[in-house]
Amino acid sequence: MKARVENVFANLEPKPDVVLLANAVDPHIDRSFFYLFDVPSGLFEGSVAIAHPDGSLDVTSSPLEAESAELAAKHDPHVQIHVVGRGESTKILQKLVPSTATVGLNYRELTHAGYVQLAESLPGAKFVDAGVGIQKARAVKDASEVEKIRKAAEIGSKVGRKIPSLLRPGITELELAAEMEYAMNQLGANGCSFSTIVGFGPHSAEPHYQPDGTPLRPGQSMVCDFGAWYRRYACDITRSFHYGPRDDEMKAVHECVEAAQKAALEVLRPGISGKEVHRAAERVIDASPWKGRFTHGLGHALGLAVHDGGPGLAPNVDDLLEVGMVVTVEPGIYLPGKGGVRIEDDVVITKTGYEFLTTAPRGYVEVSA
Amino acid sequence: MKARVENVFANLEPKPDVVLLANAVDPHIDRSFFYLFDVPSGLFEGSVAIAHPDGSLDVTSSPLEAESAELAAKHDPHVQIHVVGRGESTKILQKLVPSTATVGLNYRELTHAGYVQLAESLPGAKFVDAGVGIQKARAVKDASEVEKIRKAAEIGSKVGRKIPSLLRPGITELELAAEMEYAMNQLGANGCSFSTIVGFGPHSAEPHYQPDGTPLRPGQSMVCDFGAWYRRYACDITRSFHYGPRDDEMKAVHECVEAAQKAALEVLRPGISGKEVHRAAERVIDASPWKGRFTHGLGHALGLAVHDGGPGLAPNVDDLLEVGMVVTVEPGIYLPGKGGVRIEDDVVITKTGYEFLTTAPRGYVEVSA
Repeated sequence: MKARVENVFANLEPKPDVVLLANAVDPHIDRSFFYLFDVPSGLFEGSVAIAHPDGSLDVTSSPLEAESAELAAKHDPHVQIHVVGRGESTKILQKLVPSTATVGLNYRELTHAGYVQLAESLPGAKFVDAGVGIQKARAVKDASEVEKIRKAAEIGSKVGRKIPSLLRPGITELELAAEMEYAMNQLGANGCSFSTIVGFGPHSAEPHYQPDGTPLRPGQSMVCDFGAWYRRYACDITRSFHYGPRDDEMKAVHECVEAAQKAALEVLRPGISGKEVHRAAERVIDASPWKGRFTHGLGHALGLAVHDGGPGLAPNVDDLLEVGMVVTVEPGIYLPGKGGVRIEDDVVITKTGYEFLTTAPRGYVEVSA
Repeated sequence: MKARVENVFANLEPKPDVVLLANAVDPHIDRSFFYLFDVPSGLFEGSVAIAHPDGSLDVTSSPLEAESAELAAKHDPHVQIHVVGRGESTKILQKLVPSTATVGLNYRELTHAGYVQLAESLPGAKFVDAGVGIQKARAVKDASEVEKIRKAAEIGSKVGRKIPSLLRPGITELELAAEMEYAMNQLGANGCSFSTIVGFGPHSAEPHYQPDGTPLRPGQSMVCDFGAWYRRYACDITRSFHYGPRDDEMKAVHECVEAAQKAALEVLRPGISGKEVHRAAERVIDASPWKGRFTHGLGHALGLAVHDGGPGLAPNVDDLLEVGMVVTVEPGIYLPGKGGVRIEDDVVITKTGYEFLTTAPRGYVEVSA
């Protein structure tokens, strides 16, 4: 897409002659490839996108995905597809990249093997890291990107609302995850944006827990962290519930996490740094009986990747938020051996503050066992 | 795991002083990390595994995943976990890696940014590519790996058998994909190993098609390509069906693909090259009216990744198959604008030939509309 190619070059100083994004084998695919080349389907292993300062884009494709590539290029006069047969990739690269060009690469998503191969294929080229510029371009979403994340977030929110109705005595973590993923796909998701986390009781105190056959028992809290893909864009939402009877401490923990999220959202606006937003939430938790139990960053950028490259909300983030950035806001409190609560929403930064993309209720919910 | 660490060093000549695997941010996680460190849950972004020739393994973990890491290390006396706080990673690396060591890296899965960072953190180290040795070690699966793939394949096979019962007039590609994924998760999958492909009619002629809202219509063929994760190991299975009434050409295409797969399986055994197996299938298709319509490789290695690094079955693969390798066997015929048929199974190479891990019927199935 011409505007996105131009956006990448606008964020690079000095400007390379071309920006080259190279995919390896799944999962080592450069998501930025799909920022520049808006193709709805296909994996594009081994494909290369070469962006030029005039906004044009050369894309190589294996014969396997040539049809999908050509179809997408039909809608975009600035994209030229080059079908590459076996053993032809070096020749095509040498044709598309001037022999002594300065070539901007995306060091963060390019494999080192890919780098070594490019250096051999283009011996006269000078390579520079264009990763920061690409990340800056991707950090601020355009309207079509926000709409895709919003669609993904709507799917996630509907499932978040539905979770209490899915609970029953003895349902296992994996069974609940299966129900949630099914519901997302039925609502039009292109699969899950990451491996669904469902943790019951003590498992909910492990932020990156992977569900197993553990059955739900009365009196347990639970954390459900999940997300949908929608046309290559992700949402990422967490909702926490309590399966009755009540545990007064877990109710108070939930209310504290909710207050921490509110405190962060109150300061969230263009021009504030990621670390200031993190601290607003952390201050609330550190003033509670659960001081020190918020063990991760408050949020991360979201887009073509679940952990997108742009500025997040964490203690080490000096970057200032800008209109159009999409971030998660996800404070949590974890009590090892007992349970945890995390509330996570996706928001887009607006001129006046922020807008929720995820909308499911965030308050304490006690489901009768 | 000691045996796997030793296996990696056994496949490296000359031997580096250590082998270091570094994860970046999801999706740029080195699957080989989980070959050496058998931890059932957790993402381990930013973690590093340092393997030593004596079979011992140092693993760094963020505080976030320290609990999961410590739990896994409890079962393995050769693993030592090092919890790394913010900004401490260089210091820990310098402590764990001798300053002038020769360090084997996995160039295929390490990002170039990760490489640059390691070179800065370990200025006296000499880096070499250990990728080939790691790949060779991973290519031959041990019993516990085969069992995990078998479990994943059993899940896939059950869903393959179920697909005909899920078909109804007007069901969309995405709806069918949702039903299939739900069924896999209900059967105990840890999610889908890749984005499910369901293509109806002309869409089934695109090997990497992504499903959309297209409804199923009588007289169409369909390709369903899907897979489950089971404890980090993948299966990958494709079944093709015809939704009646019959189309004589598509029935003949199905029978030709089935014959091509049988021809490949007949020659599949230890000591044969990947290209010879590919050719056995290709010969059948190229002797049919659909000569040239088999547009991809016959198969790929399978394991911790869906497209695992080991030798596959393709025209350019001179490597010889060995006992314990797991590969897909997936011939296909694609008629653009009309439809396609692909049959894909996962097999493990045995002393006498091969064993099917996927078991769903492969023959022509006509489902009444």
